Amino acid sequence: MTHPVDYAHRERSRFYDELWDFLRIPSVSAKSEHNGDTERAAEWVRAQLSQAGLRTETIATPGHPVVLGEWRDAGPEAPTVLIYGHYDVQPPEPLELWDSPPFEPAIRDGRIYARGSADDKGQLFLHIKALEAHLATRGRLPVNVVVLAEGEEEVGSPNLVPFVKAHRERLAAETVVISDSAMFAPGVPSLLFSLRGLAYFEIHAQGPRSDLHSGAYGGAIPNPANALSRVISTLHDETGRIAIEGFYDDIEPPSPETLEGIRSLPFDAEAYAAQVGTIPAGGESAYSPLERLWTRPSCDVNGMLSGYTGEGAKTVLPANAMAKVSFRLVPGQSPVRVKELLEEHLAKVAPAGVDLTLVELHGGRPWRAKLEGPLFEAASRALERSFGARPVLAGEGGTIPIVGEFEEILGANSLLLGFALPGANMHAPNEWFATDCFERGIDTLIHLYDELAQGGNSG
Amino acid sequence: MTHPVDYAHRERSRFYDELWDFLRIPSVSAKSEHNGDTERAAEWVRAQLSQAGLRTETIATPGHPVVLGEWRDAGPEAPTVLIYGHYDVQPPEPLELWDSPPFEPAIRDGRIYARGSADDKGQLFLHIKALEAHLATRGRLPVNVVVLAEGEEEVGSPNLVPFVKAHRERLAAETVVISDSAMFAPGVPSLLFSLRGLAYFEIHAQGPRSDLHSGAYGGAIPNPANALSRVISTLHDETGRIAIEGFYDDIEPPSPETLEGIRSLPFDAEAYAAQVGTIPAGGESAYSPLERLWTRPSCDVNGMLSGYTGEGAKTVLPANAMAKVSFRLVPGQSPVRVKELLEEHLAKVAPAGVDLTLVELHGGRPWRAKLEGPLFEAASRALERSFGARPVLAGEGGTIPIVGEFEEILGANSLLLGFALPGANMHAPNEWFATDCFERGIDTLIHLYDELAQGGNSG
Repeated sequence: MTHPVDYAHRERSRFYDELWDFLRIPSVSAKSEHNGDTERAAEWVRAQLSQAGLRTETIATPGHPVVLGEWRDAGPEAPTVLIYGHYDVQPPEPLELWDSPPFEPAIRDGRIYARGSADDKGQLFLHIKALEAHLATRGRLPVNVVVLAEGEEEVGSPNLVPFVKAHRERLAAETVVISDSAMFAPGVPSLLFSLRGLAYFEIHAQGPRSDLHSGAYGGAIPNPANALSRVISTLHDETGRIAIEGFYDDIEPPSPETLEGIRSLPFDAEAYAAQVGTIPAGGESAYSPLERLWTRPSCDVNGMLSGYTGEGAKTVLPANAMAKVSFRLVPGQSPVRVKELLEEHLAKVAPAGVDLTLVELHGGRPWRAKLEGPLFEAASRALERSFGARPVLAGEGGTIPIVGEFEEILGANSLLLGFALPGANMHAPNEWFATDCFERGIDTLIHLYDELAQGGNSG
Repeated sequence: MTHPVDYAHRERSRFYDELWDFLRIPSVSAKSEHNGDTERAAEWVRAQLSQAGLRTETIATPGHPVVLGEWRDAGPEAPTVLIYGHYDVQPPEPLELWDSPPFEPAIRDGRIYARGSADDKGQLFLHIKALEAHLATRGRLPVNVVVLAEGEEEVGSPNLVPFVKAHRERLAAETVVISDSAMFAPGVPSLLFSLRGLAYFEIHAQGPRSDLHSGAYGGAIPNPANALSRVISTLHDETGRIAIEGFYDDIEPPSPETLEGIRSLPFDAEAYAAQVGTIPAGGESAYSPLERLWTRPSCDVNGMLSGYTGEGAKTVLPANAMAKVSFRLVPGQSPVRVKELLEEHLAKVAPAGVDLTLVELHGGRPWRAKLEGPLFEAASRALERSFGARPVLAGEGGTIPIVGEFEEILGANSLLLGFALPGANMHAPNEWFATDCFERGIDTLIHLYDELAQGGNSG
């Protein structure tokens, strides 16, 4: 009997062809003119799951549909695995910065360039092909499987939590597997030990009733843009520490083992600076860059607007100023508490004559993996078998709010096992996915299902 | 013989009709689609000056034309007065905030509402009618007169200095009279003792090479918007004093008499706050609001832009941030020196990993009137005759760069004698000019020419 991995290697060329078909569909969920394409991507996923041998259903939501694929014949003793991914993609703009068209995949230097190649079509596709390889060779899967592919991840998954709540029983699973993140480095597979949460706000500063002439009023009337700048400057102290009273109080630090793991990872500041275009000098100077990104909260201005921003010199004293300010949170912190603390802080630093208003835009709880136990063991062995190296533990600075929700609603543990590489331009022009990761990713997931069936205890 | 003032009163209704014609022309110099209207306004001024009895000429510039009106038959002993004004207006936008159309004048509550009613068509028109009143009743003017009306004041007068230099002899005058400013209060005529200067910059902060994901990079990569906010916050100390080293060193303070005059003026902080919508808590807390506006420099953010400013939560760590920052300067200070000091300051406060660039946009020197002497005496008496009150000395927080240039190029002294009232919305919707000031303004200028002929020594 052909081993599923051998099957996957033999069928590789067809897999690439199929991936090309998937990547060619411009399923940009944020743009209504692409609604037809987004529906087409959903149907493409459904058909693929069906051809692989799963029972499929496309379920409408108020937005883009959810595609479910189910295979439940592994028996009542076998665990159930929920595989989550998304078939929608970020807008490709600015188009002029792409070296090849975003929806016409091209391989250069061992990389598949296309919008969605890494985030997340390419990684969702790995699961579909791993499932197909099992079913095509053995006629069965080692575990019960529910695949949930949504089409609204890039617009904040507005309909997913209601969907999961409404289908709580059907989605019930011990384990959620998500491949929508990156490896630590080429050849260094990794498992995520945490995700940061998010608390996203707008701060509005209102000074005079309307824009004024900066000559006629400047020096007497408080300027809301100057005031907001001062307010933003109070959010950090000189060492890069967030200077909101009580902000760090609730943090539950990572385990000594996790910290030791992070400190043992190589971090090439020079290469990082070359990639990003500036040195990693942001945030708390008391921590290393990786510790800051993975284990410490952050506070960033995401946008700022006030007064006249066109060409030339307009002498306006603006009536108001706005900043979008977001915080990444670490385990122990919550968006609700951070909002309270920020409100208290703003009340303290509010300048005379300028009204500050806080508007909450978006939140997501941080998540921490249960590192001990069979789940991580299973994933580690699967990765080792395909990459020839034990995975390292890595954090993720970003937020995937649905992970916490899956755990809470379904009572599942999550495994975040991603195959993109750092610098993959996941929300930028020239997004890419390494062909090596694509190929080893399928192998890994084939092994993973086997390992999960053993409860993580096989050798 | 009819006195020119009686003539003006008799002809008042026609003057209003003519002013309406002038205000109806949308001579928005900033917008090329209004080029035809702006030319039409120039021709309207030329025709009016010609009908009043002056020799007129319209002289092309690379932008909008200059209109000259001359009358030189007062004899070689009589002084020559250069009257400067502008026939262009600010854009009327936002249109929806006007209570009546900007180019359809309407009288409500003793105010003429229209774009340009106060700035500066209405005030330029006062001079034309005062000249007409003299010539129509006496067949002559008491002084030699050159009227210079330009059409580019609202776009920074880019062609005026070259024009004045090229026509230096023709424009030669002992006195420049400008009516483009405001009185201290209703019923309180005023003469300007100073104008503030201007130094206008853009500060650009560049962090990473391109926008980054705030989750994946936040806390490691320096954020240029946070950094720029901090830079802006360093421009002032806690007391509102500008915290750039050396910034106040060159200031030549006003005379004790001027300061005493300012301190004797009533300032109703409550009424001011009600008008503006916030308390006068900006600037140096050690000085009164009027002192701050008239005798102290200021520093205001005029515009600020970074990252994502649309609706909702985009988790971007922006590559760059920009602020437009301008300084109002007082006598002794210069835009050139302020730029040097700001450059030194930015070098000191520049944060690690963020590049700051300073771009100079615009500058104008401050101006201080020669308060002693016959010129001020003449103007005081003219104002007293029409308003029944001696003028107070007032400062002006804004900048009229051409004043310093006239004095330097022509060797003239300037008299800034304005008839708008505070809150006239000169660059905002619902600009207005009080009918009382319109009527007394013509009377004042009729008297002024007489007084100037007497060298300020008549009784």
